Amino acid sequence: MRNQEPERLRTERDGIGEIDLPADAYYGIHTSRAVRNFPFSGYRLHPAFIRAFAQVKQACAKTNALLGHLSGERGQAIMDACAEIAGGAFHDQIVVDPFQGGAGTSTNMNFNEVIAARAAERLGGDRGDRELVNPLRHVNMHQSTNDVFPTALRVAATDLLMELERAVASLQESLQRKETEFRDVVKVGRTELTDAVPMTLGMSFGAFAEAVSRDRWRIFKCRERIKRVNLGGTAIGTGLGAPRDYVLAVAGNLAAITGLPVSRAENLLDATQNADVFVEVSGMLKACAANLLKIGSDLRLLSSGPAAGLGEITLPPIQAGSSIMAGKVNPVMPEAVTQAALRVMGNDQTIALAAGLGQLELNHLLPLITHSLLESMTLLTASCLGLADNCVRGIEARPDRCRAHVEQSAALATVLVPVLGYDAVEKLVADARRNGTPIPAHMVEAGVAPADTVERLFSPRQLCKLGFTPGEYEEVNTP
Amino acid sequence: MRNQEPERLRTERDGIGEIDLPADAYYGIHTSRAVRNFPFSGYRLHPAFIRAFAQVKQACAKTNALLGHLSGERGQAIMDACAEIAGGAFHDQIVVDPFQGGAGTSTNMNFNEVIAARAAERLGGDRGDRELVNPLRHVNMHQSTNDVFPTALRVAATDLLMELERAVASLQESLQRKETEFRDVVKVGRTELTDAVPMTLGMSFGAFAEAVSRDRWRIFKCRERIKRVNLGGTAIGTGLGAPRDYVLAVAGNLAAITGLPVSRAENLLDATQNADVFVEVSGMLKACAANLLKIGSDLRLLSSGPAAGLGEITLPPIQAGSSIMAGKVNPVMPEAVTQAALRVMGNDQTIALAAGLGQLELNHLLPLITHSLLESMTLLTASCLGLADNCVRGIEARPDRCRAHVEQSAALATVLVPVLGYDAVEKLVADARRNGTPIPAHMVEAGVAPADTVERLFSPRQLCKLGFTPGEYEEVNTP
Amino acid sequence: MRNQEPERLRTERDGIGEIDLPADAYYGIHTSRAVRNFPFSGYRLHPAFIRAFAQVKQACAKTNALLGHLSGERGQAIMDACAEIAGGAFHDQIVVDPFQGGAGTSTNMNFNEVIAARAAERLGGDRGDRELVNPLRHVNMHQSTNDVFPTALRVAATDLLMELERAVASLQESLQRKETEFRDVVKVGRTELTDAVPMTLGMSFGAFAEAVSRDRWRIFKCRERIKRVNLGGTAIGTGLGAPRDYVLAVAGNLAAITGLPVSRAENLLDATQNADVFVEVSGMLKACAANLLKIGSDLRLLSSGPAAGLGEITLPPIQAGSSIMAGKVNPVMPEAVTQAALRVMGNDQTIALAAGLGQLELNHLLPLITHSLLESMTLLTASCLGLADNCVRGIEARPDRCRAHVEQSAALATVLVPVLGYDAVEKLVADARRNGTPIPAHMVEAGVAPADTVERLFSPRQLCKLGFTPGEYEEVNTP
Amino acid sequence: MRNQEPERLRTERDGIGEIDLPADAYYGIHTSRAVRNFPFSGYRLHPAFIRAFAQVKQACAKTNALLGHLSGERGQAIMDACAEIAGGAFHDQIVVDPFQGGAGTSTNMNFNEVIAARAAERLGGDRGDRELVNPLRHVNMHQSTNDVFPTALRVAATDLLMELERAVASLQESLQRKETEFRDVVKVGRTELTDAVPMTLGMSFGAFAEAVSRDRWRIFKCRERIKRVNLGGTAIGTGLGAPRDYVLAVAGNLAAITGLPVSRAENLLDATQNADVFVEVSGMLKACAANLLKIGSDLRLLSSGPAAGLGEITLPPIQAGSSIMAGKVNPVMPEAVTQAALRVMGNDQTIALAAGLGQLELNHLLPLITHSLLESMTLLTASCLGLADNCVRGIEARPDRCRAHVEQSAALATVLVPVLGYDAVEKLVADARRNGTPIPAHMVEAGVAPADTVERLFSPRQLCKLGFTPGEYEEVNTP
Repeated sequence: MRNQEPERLRTERDGIGEIDLPADAYYGIHTSRAVRNFPFSGYRLHPAFIRAFAQVKQACAKTNALLGHLSGERGQAIMDACAEIAGGAFHDQIVVDPFQGGAGTSTNMNFNEVIAARAAERLGGDRGDRELVNPLRHVNMHQSTNDVFPTALRVAATDLLMELERAVASLQESLQRKETEFRDVVKVGRTELTDAVPMTLGMSFGAFAEAVSRDRWRIFKCRERIKRVNLGGTAIGTGLGAPRDYVLAVAGNLAAITGLPVSRAENLLDATQNADVFVEVSGMLKACAANLLKIGSDLRLLSSGPAAGLGEITLPPIQAGSSIMAGKVNPVMPEAVTQAALRVMGNDQTIALAAGLGQLELNHLLPLITHSLLESMTLLTASCLGLADNCVRGIEARPDRCRAHVEQSAALATVLVPVLGYDAVEKLVADARRNGTPIPAHMVEAGVAPADTVERLFSPRQLCKLGFTPGEYEEVNTP
Repeated sequence: MRNQEPERLRTERDGIGEIDLPADAYYGIHTSRAVRNFPFSGYRLHPAFIRAFAQVKQACAKTNALLGHLSGERGQAIMDACAEIAGGAFHDQIVVDPFQGGAGTSTNMNFNEVIAARAAERLGGDRGDRELVNPLRHVNMHQSTNDVFPTALRVAATDLLMELERAVASLQESLQRKETEFRDVVKVGRTELTDAVPMTLGMSFGAFAEAVSRDRWRIFKCRERIKRVNLGGTAIGTGLGAPRDYVLAVAGNLAAITGLPVSRAENLLDATQNADVFVEVSGMLKACAANLLKIGSDLRLLSSGPAAGLGEITLPPIQAGSSIMAGKVNPVMPEAVTQAALRVMGNDQTIALAAGLGQLELNHLLPLITHSLLESMTLLTASCLGLADNCVRGIEARPDRCRAHVEQSAALATVLVPVLGYDAVEKLVADARRNGTPIPAHMVEAGVAPADTVERLFSPRQLCKLGFTPGEYEEVNTP
Repeated sequence: MRNQEPERLRTERDGIGEIDLPADAYYGIHTSRAVRNFPFSGYRLHPAFIRAFAQVKQACAKTNALLGHLSGERGQAIMDACAEIAGGAFHDQIVVDPFQGGAGTSTNMNFNEVIAARAAERLGGDRGDRELVNPLRHVNMHQSTNDVFPTALRVAATDLLMELERAVASLQESLQRKETEFRDVVKVGRTELTDAVPMTLGMSFGAFAEAVSRDRWRIFKCRERIKRVNLGGTAIGTGLGAPRDYVLAVAGNLAAITGLPVSRAENLLDATQNADVFVEVSGMLKACAANLLKIGSDLRLLSSGPAAGLGEITLPPIQAGSSIMAGKVNPVMPEAVTQAALRVMGNDQTIALAAGLGQLELNHLLPLITHSLLESMTLLTASCLGLADNCVRGIEARPDRCRAHVEQSAALATVLVPVLGYDAVEKLVADARRNGTPIPAHMVEAGVAPADTVERLFSPRQLCKLGFTPGEYEEVNTP
Repeated sequence: MRNQEPERLRTERDGIGEIDLPADAYYGIHTSRAVRNFPFSGYRLHPAFIRAFAQVKQACAKTNALLGHLSGERGQAIMDACAEIAGGAFHDQIVVDPFQGGAGTSTNMNFNEVIAARAAERLGGDRGDRELVNPLRHVNMHQSTNDVFPTALRVAATDLLMELERAVASLQESLQRKETEFRDVVKVGRTELTDAVPMTLGMSFGAFAEAVSRDRWRIFKCRERIKRVNLGGTAIGTGLGAPRDYVLAVAGNLAAITGLPVSRAENLLDATQNADVFVEVSGMLKACAANLLKIGSDLRLLSSGPAAGLGEITLPPIQAGSSIMAGKVNPVMPEAVTQAALRVMGNDQTIALAAGLGQLELNHLLPLITHSLLESMTLLTASCLGLADNCVRGIEARPDRCRAHVEQSAALATVLVPVLGYDAVEKLVADARRNGTPIPAHMVEAGVAPADTVERLFSPRQLCKLGFTPGEYEEVNTP
């Protein structure tokens, strides 16, 4: 839409024919064909994937240069071009749609062409000069899309998982603060959305925090699962076409460049064709999504109303709520998080299928796995940060409503089951309901217990204690 | 990432506080807050949705203007601003992330603000002048996000379904041409990937075409399902806050502006809160995805090899296949289509859940439904067009390999079951296999039938006929 | 688990070897191998599928008998045996696990063996006598698993869809009754779970009923999609091995036997290999599931509490609620329905994938599609009937709580936006909230409108009218 | 269907009314209501869940008896009754449908009633005597469905995971044997189903085995995740209604009874309401399913034909393949496994959603999670065992076809890219293809290398070596 007609053109040719390209384009004919062949989604590759891909190409060039396979000056120029892209430059030249056939070949060629052009430029040549630095012979030296692409995915995923872990930790901490803050707010517990036994609002946030702490652990652990790369394996993992010294050294150079603990997989064929580790990682993301879905739903329930709902907490207003209903504040952050969580679940299905549909020596659906997995990570990171910073930290309790709900709730009487028995309590509840009296008041009125005992039985301290001890019920009498 | 520091700023304020905006921004403070609140996906709204949304706002303004609720000059300016956006302008001002809370309120406010600014500008005012044309009082007059947003989704979906229908028709036609072209190429049928009875290659494409013709019909029919809009229903479908004359007229004006057969839903509450029609539409898209998955898989199987696979057809090369294996041609278009199909299936899950998780008078997850549904439509349209134009039309048969496979296949002998019986045929097959003789040749050698009868039994004409007639087997003898 | 050691055994043999079977078993060696090969789920085939399968075999036998391919006495015995199974007998002899390889061959052989044994028995022979009536030569005459199995699925699905349609109609009717019954119960509408504009409880049920009416229509329509059968197509749809007169007649005989409007598909290859119609049908079931999920969720929200929740309706108690909390009543029917709906959604994913993974001339995953699709239908039928009979019909309104919620809700003030404007209303709401006065009372106190006008503005009659007319606001003044 | 009219009846009553039951039924009125309320699926509970549930009830009774809360004789009778069920008895009395509302209350009551009846019987009483041993007061003492049910799920899941781990280990071992057996069978590697570089058949099985070894590890690890139980937490995890000594002791008694390393969760509220660990476990199962899907697909591809497909391996025939095509052998075991894998993926979606839809202090959808999760485990265990025992162990290589495919494949020439360069190899391939000569022969003919060098370059030893060393190419010349 924003394209202007390019003034100058250059022509490139391949086995299929000729194509005119903008003279100032870094990419070349293969990229151009791929752009025409795959006008699918209109999306671009994830920035973290572009960075990682450039780092992988850099590691290959560095290895080739160090081992003498690539002449010093040309090797350095290629490495520098890669480093520029890894640093954020030229992302607008990575133009192939994420939805592409060929198991990522077009993306690899896009990088090969852009890196070659930029390296040529750095060497004083022309962007279109494919001889000074050749995309295939020099930039792609000893590589196959089939080892470069999955390696880049693993690097990018590791990177984003570290971001996600920090975001999850931030959410956990914000929840734990509320656990402490709301420690003394007594409220009614609800099972199946119906009134159940009493608890504290702090406990609600404590349970959220506990669930999120498991996410943190899972995300930490699953980083280990994707750190083994198949770089050096070339087409199918046998390393065919690559020299042995290169195969043994390249993963180490990648680790040095990225600062990540990546290493060479023992079985390179396996690492080339099997994508189950991405299913595993996505499964961990989905567990996180399930927790976010539940927390988001609970926050909306607890803040519902404010008058005609539960209204036991208020969420901080972060924007005007309605374009028609004045003064309305909506739980927009939990709603955004809910949608992110559902998308992550949809992505998980897509990833698992794509992994299972790999065939023989390659998974040809890696581009889809890549796009879906990195999208999920980004959505979850934004969700955790948004929830922590723009929602949880600003939540306030409405202790009066919490207390009122407890007193109206009949299930409170469950406290008495151990001493009175199920049937007597059932009758007590029925009596209180008939009289329209709250359970605590009815207990006093009916002579079940004196007022101070009743108060003690429903105190935060009592509620947070696990299980009762016989002495607690000493002053309770059968009505 | 590409933002430069704006030189000039203007300040806007709302109930929460003040925000500085670029002075040349058409959007305003609500949009700005939403951008900060929802840095989720980095995606933009689908262009078809932006167009549709602008048309909906235009229909509202037109109705208000015609009925005298909106003064002539201001009304006209708003309508003109809407028409500009519908025509493709100012899309870069629609900046809120598709993953947003608030059921689309932020997107609606984004439109309200941009339209108001542009209308003010057209009236000679300043972009930041919120009094000349007010986003809420004038642009959003008699509207709620809750009726505007779903209506825009229905308009955009209808539009994209019409595009998809054309793409499916194109695919169907390309398949039918191959059905005719390959009518006489005899090949082996395969069940469970094992050799089965003979057929023609034309039949393969005929079966694909028949499946796709059902998609065409389904997509045509499901357009009817989404044409009923809840525009005029305001917040929950009761039309509260909107005058009766407006409610009755606005859908008609939308039909006139869009040229689409949209009309007002009978039950506006239902149309506001229930999203099952989007599940229905997505289900139809998924049926199409299932067909594309199957066709893509079959094309890859039939073209596999070319030497060490089935190799019964060749797909047209549309780009160099491998960055390492010289001369390799990959089935890139079926692979891209496969990935699109899997994404559509993932989206379908997301849409169904989001629809089912609506609560009471609103589905708060409509932004997710919108993004996922329109993405699915775009992916399928690109898939059908890509498959038709860049794959199917260029497919060529390899009749010699097809014939060779038929002759090697033992299951061919099933032709004889009606006359010889299951057990005798089983023995015949075993004998032929032991001798390494193709079934037809073995039939002649073993005296089961003369050569011309054998040839007739495996001729295209015979294979395309449904069922046998007794005469056909006259010259076949029990061996 | 329930097996006793059989006293008497008989021996059968096939190409692989010998097996001992219980002497009184109707099934034979193929079935026995399949039972050992596929100890997967422990489930049995759906009874509707067993009935349908027997009817299909009956139609084949009848056609063969009428056309003279099968001798009169043997043909009649086979037909009678089929009719017995279709009538409910011998279901315990259909023992192969639904999760089986071979595209249903084992199930077809199970039927062939049981029918042959029973027909032999009817002819005075022994169950184990495979010559008197042969499972393959006689019972399976002119058939392939590949045409028989999918045809049986279509028959069973048609049957269950008719049951489901009746169940959906029953649910719709129960909802419509409540729509009428609760017509005058004014309540607060809720968007994003926060208080919004007023409405009636009748409207809530009217919106449910409208959604369900679409399900009814969809289920009715999708019956048409599956009525075309591939019976007569044999292995891949070419009819190879079957005589022409049989191919042309067999679908008609099936229609006569089942009383269903089944007919022969035009393109039998397509109908054999493509499963997209099952995706379409499952998509319709999923739309129904989405509606049930939403209705179930709304019923739970509206009945939540009873004290510390919304509590605007009560669901009929159908069982004691809790094993620990005396007197608790849980929304068990909506909960069961929710689970059924989620399972249907899971099944839909499975079905779509299995359909898309068909290869070349056959979908080898039809057994999975069959099991999942029929399970979904059964779950939805039970859900609709259970919801109608054991939940909706017994729902009662709590009009006092409904009214109290309306009066506490600030969003009620939206009624005044058309006359006072958004800003003035925002202020009014803030004032009322500060004073702790309900909006209607505050309106009177603040001199915005006289009491009778306020009452009229919030009357059921007013709320059910679509849009306002200027006169309605005559007595409202800016405060 | 199998019910006969019971001769004798007994009557039970609850708060809702009276019901007649078969006099010999162990279950009671609550169970009977639940059976009528939930006629959803027709399935029964998983046997492993029934066993686990009985063990949990036994642990509770034992704890109560040891601490003196339950009188010695009655406590012992309850424990004995539980042990009988855990040992396999009375499973036919556990009759409530797995699809039930109430978060499992009906199943808990089913157990309470059956255990009480059986304990009463053991004490010399009548099955219907609810006073001698009371289902609620005695059997359910200090318990809530909300702690008992999820605990039973965790115990059953742990048990089935151990079975699954053994099955996965068996599959891994069978694959590793084939890796060794086929070590010297040279074959063509395939990427995107097109001919790629050479490898050995042993490598194929080595890659499968490596993937499966990750499953084994994952399944082993995820057992740890579900061993923390919320037993003792009663309704919401606060332990309300249970004495402190009981709460602290009951998990230990469960560990003793089951022999599993279960222990009390630190945060019982969390363990009661959050189901993310089941999502995690299901995610691991799905990774296993993805691997099985891929392995099953590869085995079918490699064994396809046998004549008109790849046909590089043969699967052992385990049953006659076709009811119409004599002599056909189908890959039935991989097909069954594929279906199990797809079902596991569908279940995973269901489980994740159900987990995410928990609300506040309870996940009311645990019955669905239970049914789906245990079904997945059973299907995977059967899949691994079936694949190992009835498929992999019997696989044979067809080395002649493997070798022929290698020689026909042009991609073999990639071996020469390091020495000749991409362009020269591309030309060599084109020449060989034009002449119809296999690449190795063409290399000799064209003078690229002497015959023994060619042979060495394509030897198994060479192919299994990672990367080349310069010396290997000494005798290769540019053509």
